[in-house]
Amino acid sequence: MNFRIDNLQYCNWSRKIFEINRAAGLDAVHVTIVYHEDYDELITELNKWEKIFEENSDLIFLGKNFKDIEKAKLENKTAIFFGFQNCSPIEDDISLVEKVHKLGCRFMQLTYNNQSLLATGCYEKIDSGVTNFGREAIKEMNRVGIVIDMSHSAEKSTMDAIEISEKPIAITHANPSFWHAAKRNLLGAVCI
Amino acid sequence: MNFRIDNLQYCNWSRKIFEINRAAGLDAVHVTIVYHEDYDELITELNKWEKIFEENSDLIFLGKNFKDIEKAKLENKTAIFFGFQNCSPIEDDISLVEKVHKLGCRFMQLTYNNQSLLATGCYEKIDSGVTNFGREAIKEMNRVGIVIDMSHSAEKSTMDAIEISEKPIAITHANPSFWHAAKRNLLGAVCI
Repeated sequence: MNFRIDNLQYCNWSRKIFEINRAAGLDAVHVTIVYHEDYDELITELNKWEKIFEENSDLIFLGKNFKDIEKAKLENKTAIFFGFQNCSPIEDDISLVEKVHKLGCRFMQLTYNNQSLLATGCYEKIDSGVTNFGREAIKEMNRVGIVIDMSHSAEKSTMDAIEISEKPIAITHANPSFWHAAKRNLLGAVCI
Repeated sequence: MNFRIDNLQYCNWSRKIFEINRAAGLDAVHVTIVYHEDYDELITELNKWEKIFEENSDLIFLGKNFKDIEKAKLENKTAIFFGFQNCSPIEDDISLVEKVHKLGCRFMQLTYNNQSLLATGCYEKIDSGVTNFGREAIKEMNRVGIVIDMSHSAEKSTMDAIEISEKPIAITHANPSFWHAAKRNLLGAVCI
């Protein structure tokens, strides 16, 4: 069975967009639910989405694992997978990794352009790689089942994440730098 | 006029300690009001201190600038200067630097052992120095009048801070590493 998956989208979501997505046969989409928000602000966004799911249950549902992509295709719906474009929702608290997973989040970027508590972003002058806390966060993400997304990260940090993670990492939105030289693009890593 | 100043203390503050301090002729003390707390948690601590100041106004008061050290000596009191051992109270929001200054805080460490959003701590494997956000935070600290404290920071980050800051920085609690080799001690920087 073939699937149509959008690896990352951020937009002003509406019923019209869900209809367009379904008309295009989109089985799953990774939705950026937050960028730089902290844990409490994430909860606010999740509450908004609860209403969106209720009002559009004929078109979408919250995806939690790969089987939901198949389910979406069979039911003619689009599975929505939540992700963060930064690690700010886990703040400086390792226990929040499990909490955000329980709330349905499945992707988390370790950085967004600048230095985070976990790793270095692609716009910093020096890339020190994955930090002490980053190492622990990756282990915990592996354990609970959150995909490590290294989009917007610097090169060494990305390589470190690949090395440290026991599961494959993702770069959900970037290109190889040999296509186009840009700080956001990556040389060695595979972009999906 | 000579002054007795304690560059950093963290303890279970009580009237008894304020009495001991005054008996020892302590004119000023830099008090760690928070370690890893965020902005809201800092407010909670400040509220606790408001009560402490009220109940011990014959022994202590909140110090806000160097003249308060002289005032303390003349009034036979100890001026309390607030500081943070991490940059977590400003979270990821540059506007909080001015806010914490208005609330009476006068020292802030850029890191505490591990990587922060501003710089690298002394226990990280690689020290990438002051980050993009760190550069902006230092400028803002210079502007509003908060001392940059590089205790617990890594070597390059400390040197970067000295370079970037237009005002002298402080290392309120560390020793030169030629006295004793330890990650917390520093080679090139002056420890006060």
